[in-house]
Amino acid sequence: MARVAVVGAAGFAGALCAAIVERHPGLELTATTARSDAGLRLDQVYPRHRVSLELETFDADRVAERADAALVAYPHGAAAPVVQALLDRGLKVVDLSADFRLDRARYERYYQTHEAPDLIEEAEYGLPEIGHRDSVREADLVAGPGCYPTATLLALWPLRELARDAVVDAKSGVSGAGREATGTTHFVSVAENVAAYKVDGHRHRAELEHEFAEAGFPITFTPHLLPIDQGLLASCYVTPKRELSADDVRELFAEAYADEPFVELAEGPPGVRDVRETNLCRLHATVEHATGRVLVFAAIDNLWKGAASQAVQDLNLMLGLAEEQGLGATATRRAAPAPSVVSTAQVPS
Amino acid sequence: MARVAVVGAAGFAGALCAAIVERHPGLELTATTARSDAGLRLDQVYPRHRVSLELETFDADRVAERADAALVAYPHGAAAPVVQALLDRGLKVVDLSADFRLDRARYERYYQTHEAPDLIEEAEYGLPEIGHRDSVREADLVAGPGCYPTATLLALWPLRELARDAVVDAKSGVSGAGREATGTTHFVSVAENVAAYKVDGHRHRAELEHEFAEAGFPITFTPHLLPIDQGLLASCYVTPKRELSADDVRELFAEAYADEPFVELAEGPPGVRDVRETNLCRLHATVEHATGRVLVFAAIDNLWKGAASQAVQDLNLMLGLAEEQGLGATATRRAAPAPSVVSTAQVPS
Amino acid sequence: MARVAVVGAAGFAGALCAAIVERHPGLELTATTARSDAGLRLDQVYPRHRVSLELETFDADRVAERADAALVAYPHGAAAPVVQALLDRGLKVVDLSADFRLDRARYERYYQTHEAPDLIEEAEYGLPEIGHRDSVREADLVAGPGCYPTATLLALWPLRELARDAVVDAKSGVSGAGREATGTTHFVSVAENVAAYKVDGHRHRAELEHEFAEAGFPITFTPHLLPIDQGLLASCYVTPKRELSADDVRELFAEAYADEPFVELAEGPPGVRDVRETNLCRLHATVEHATGRVLVFAAIDNLWKGAASQAVQDLNLMLGLAEEQGLGATATRRAAPAPSVVSTAQVPS
Amino acid sequence: MARVAVVGAAGFAGALCAAIVERHPGLELTATTARSDAGLRLDQVYPRHRVSLELETFDADRVAERADAALVAYPHGAAAPVVQALLDRGLKVVDLSADFRLDRARYERYYQTHEAPDLIEEAEYGLPEIGHRDSVREADLVAGPGCYPTATLLALWPLRELARDAVVDAKSGVSGAGREATGTTHFVSVAENVAAYKVDGHRHRAELEHEFAEAGFPITFTPHLLPIDQGLLASCYVTPKRELSADDVRELFAEAYADEPFVELAEGPPGVRDVRETNLCRLHATVEHATGRVLVFAAIDNLWKGAASQAVQDLNLMLGLAEEQGLGATATRRAAPAPSVVSTAQVPS
Repeated sequence: MARVAVVGAAGFAGALCAAIVERHPGLELTATTARSDAGLRLDQVYPRHRVSLELETFDADRVAERADAALVAYPHGAAAPVVQALLDRGLKVVDLSADFRLDRARYERYYQTHEAPDLIEEAEYGLPEIGHRDSVREADLVAGPGCYPTATLLALWPLRELARDAVVDAKSGVSGAGREATGTTHFVSVAENVAAYKVDGHRHRAELEHEFAEAGFPITFTPHLLPIDQGLLASCYVTPKRELSADDVRELFAEAYADEPFVELAEGPPGVRDVRETNLCRLHATVEHATGRVLVFAAIDNLWKGAASQAVQDLNLMLGLAEEQGLGATATRRAAPAPSVVSTAQVPS
Repeated sequence: MARVAVVGAAGFAGALCAAIVERHPGLELTATTARSDAGLRLDQVYPRHRVSLELETFDADRVAERADAALVAYPHGAAAPVVQALLDRGLKVVDLSADFRLDRARYERYYQTHEAPDLIEEAEYGLPEIGHRDSVREADLVAGPGCYPTATLLALWPLRELARDAVVDAKSGVSGAGREATGTTHFVSVAENVAAYKVDGHRHRAELEHEFAEAGFPITFTPHLLPIDQGLLASCYVTPKRELSADDVRELFAEAYADEPFVELAEGPPGVRDVRETNLCRLHATVEHATGRVLVFAAIDNLWKGAASQAVQDLNLMLGLAEEQGLGATATRRAAPAPSVVSTAQVPS
Repeated sequence: MARVAVVGAAGFAGALCAAIVERHPGLELTATTARSDAGLRLDQVYPRHRVSLELETFDADRVAERADAALVAYPHGAAAPVVQALLDRGLKVVDLSADFRLDRARYERYYQTHEAPDLIEEAEYGLPEIGHRDSVREADLVAGPGCYPTATLLALWPLRELARDAVVDAKSGVSGAGREATGTTHFVSVAENVAAYKVDGHRHRAELEHEFAEAGFPITFTPHLLPIDQGLLASCYVTPKRELSADDVRELFAEAYADEPFVELAEGPPGVRDVRETNLCRLHATVEHATGRVLVFAAIDNLWKGAASQAVQDLNLMLGLAEEQGLGATATRRAAPAPSVVSTAQVPS
Repeated sequence: MARVAVVGAAGFAGALCAAIVERHPGLELTATTARSDAGLRLDQVYPRHRVSLELETFDADRVAERADAALVAYPHGAAAPVVQALLDRGLKVVDLSADFRLDRARYERYYQTHEAPDLIEEAEYGLPEIGHRDSVREADLVAGPGCYPTATLLALWPLRELARDAVVDAKSGVSGAGREATGTTHFVSVAENVAAYKVDGHRHRAELEHEFAEAGFPITFTPHLLPIDQGLLASCYVTPKRELSADDVRELFAEAYADEPFVELAEGPPGVRDVRETNLCRLHATVEHATGRVLVFAAIDNLWKGAASQAVQDLNLMLGLAEEQGLGATATRRAAPAPSVVSTAQVPS
């Protein structure tokens, strides 16, 4: 039973990491640290998670005494030194920040001076479904992908060699903005509202560029904020290099994800409610009759597959456990169901 | 003081038409008819509108006795015969259905056999801002545009000669689906959810094709349903025929809409809350640095500018009244404000 | 491994019953029946539950061949004959309708003529925490309590001998209204709204009267509909027969619920988010300084503890399984945490 | 045309004051000041209000040069000195804070040391409907009531001599908590949630005690936070001194509010959506058959009748204008309509 510490457990993603590890049959949650709220029990901050460990101030030695592995949920920049300290003490680490997702040049262009550049080479990108599974198994350091890239990369991966260009219109719930109370996360700003943001360039673009560097097609990426707490939908519009039928596209996706436990193919557009509090990405791919453009819709829970549960999926691989262990629902495999949530009838017409 | 009847006042758009006309200083609301709820007062069905007229069963002669003009808010197909009957009796009519928005061929391809094909020629498309103002003034029959086309056409109009192609990812609140209670409009289906729908082709595409027929660039159009009641955002991604800078784009829009009372240009992405319960379309246009693609975001209230208040704007023109009369807020003209609702900081990152 | 059928699995509560049974380590889901949607797989109607059984038309013999027990989630009136048929065939049954919650006289006063009056005597009321545990263990037929009574009875039980009177202001999410699409459940009716309903007397009052008949204090009960999907809060205002301090009250509750796995005592008012998708009732009891009135707040998930998961809790008892099995989170037992969700600062002031 | 300044126009209530004054045909908005955001135009902070005045740092002399009256929307404690300075310079003032709502002793018990105790005597409580209209007309300083007391006092006023005791379960939208971003106002804390707060005693109780001091019946008062932005419902449960029928109660209310332009009596429980963005209080009063208790439900928009528009209603009276001027909808007077929003059928049952 591997002993696991969660570093940064007072934030939304970190707290959820702790809750998932606590209930995981193959892992033992042995420490939770936080920069705020130290001294409180985690269930005083998040009653719903029912994890009664106390939040401690981070101390690498004390964590290393009690844990074989750590999930680090710090902001970018703050994460790298902590990750370094834990690796130095022999722990395996999944880092949920952006610090190890990119090559140094790209990181420093999109973020800031890197705090631990020597580690970048060692880090593996933790999206097993797009060709990283084997390397994740071998890695001591895995970078958990961003929430937007998770959905977008899963949507575009089967098309990477066929895409001439892509437009990604992404929509996220507010929990993606984190626990900090700001004008943006104020209920009154969000309720009954929707807007695009960071139209000048969201940093998550960097991960798309990095992962699709070889494929080399241009991607327009625009995030929107929605009045929901958890959930993320990436609507992707791909101009194909050659004509594709809806059947072609369906087959491409069926083949690409035939054995993936956490990718679920649906006959109609997925709703984020279909995947709430799961590690699943639910996908629907088709072709717009009028233009021949390929449409792909990818729904995830931004805090689960977009952050915490995907980190545990990676940790399972790193520790030699079954990839699905402790992660709840896996993909429905029988002939894919039609969506129940939004039918194609009787909507704004 | 023109006397106005609202036909189909028990639906969301019709009831709002009645409320706007009732408070309009240049119009008198003289009759409200409905296919359901006849015999009830309108304020028993919609207390919030505080219109105390009784809903009557439609009778063309009785309406014609009391009204000089009518707003018809029936479903497509049901509208045409009613419009015909009212025109025959000398009323001016704004029809909010799809029945007179399209040429016959396009209508019958997207909808059904037309019930009053001889009238199609007489009808004018009621979006004054994209070149229809003068014809609306002269018309006896105006077709109120669909909610999605209203936002999309306003977003794309200044770019129509410069666009090589366009992707439109549109997002609507639930009131756009109308008053009928269905699985789709059930609170439990919508709350904490978002999904695309009608990915096989929403009928509103027909209006885009019709209006941009000469421009001839392909448009991908996908609607999504959001957990809000009123509000519609069209996020438009335009590949330009030639390179455009953000300043070029800003100027194009500033010029196109310099004198429009109901088009408001913003320095950042608009939120639908910024235009709730107004006849305004709030627009932001810029260029994505990484790809050169032009991004345009258009926010409207789907029941106001997307339906009821736009119909009254048209009626104002048809009756020789000031276009802005009785319609509340007009566009902020001073140097456009930055968005307050969603800042560029601290959102899902 | 007991084989379990869910009868009425196309509704919200029935579908959730099926999902809980499907994941229960001691139960096997062998049949799902429904009055609508027969022929569809359950995951086509509710993708989120990921139960791939087909919905069948109900046939008592066919169910009895495959199941040792059944959860019946039919509307009142329709349930009784089905329950009778299943009992006749030797199944143990938990009925989620109102049909077996009340004595005949009370049932027929609040509901309608009883369809199977002879069974009433056999039925046990399925709220183990208020003195019914032992009888539930012995019963072949258990009546799952209503959602409002579940929260209210748990809130008032420790005070039943000390209460002179009680006011219960209850608030429910929309899923409590069921899957039927109506004007009431339309998103546009519910969003940004709150109102009381059935102020002339909600039927759930009958269960309060029945369970507290001996205690004999009058109860005012008023339900409200909230813009949330799952969750129910009962705010109870009790005038005590003798003066009670906050400490007295805290002790009463601590004693009453010391060993209850699904009752959680909190130091501050519970939020329904704290118990979402759990079988827990989270309670806070205190005394209003200014009046001496006892305040008790009880939060449950109306579909879980208020319906489906409580039915499985009952079934566990009936089948001799551990009461907590297959039901997820149990009550936090260490010194009760303060509420995180709504602090006592910075709220409408 | 009276010239009006709004002091504290960057908060939710102050900004709305500015918007209402700006559109008021009898008032001229001449200055807006704020403690934050000085230098920005108001429409940069709140695009939806479309008020383009610049927010200035407060300077009593500069305000006095340009204004005959002021609406002050500062937090309690900060308001008193500003009010004093403006009164000293001859302005009429409506203060929206708690500073002048109470006698000194009560104020200092519930709040803090009073900053301008000599002014307390001069201040009039700005709820015209409960006997303060004439005094408001004469006053130079009016204290705008709190949002909870506004709804509660209007609900209880006609019963004040008949009440033995009252329980008030009040529910507010998040805008009542103000613009400050906190854990409490974070979208993720509020969405899909509801909880009571300040169960140890909310300060608004002081206003109820103050206004009903003579009546002398005990009041239990508990506020709850709801996932809506604007709207407040007070559900009041009154034990009457003598038996009252539903007709008795209806008559009491009809008589008490016969001529009130902003009190609307409804045949069924009001929803807050019925009064959104109006200065109306919508009331329903009845008797619970089972207990004889009187039930009163009062719905207001907490930012309008609960704050900003009520302040303008007071200002209208102080300046000799028509009380209704510039305030939009007034009460529906014909036989009161049944509620449309929540019917008595098909809700959680």
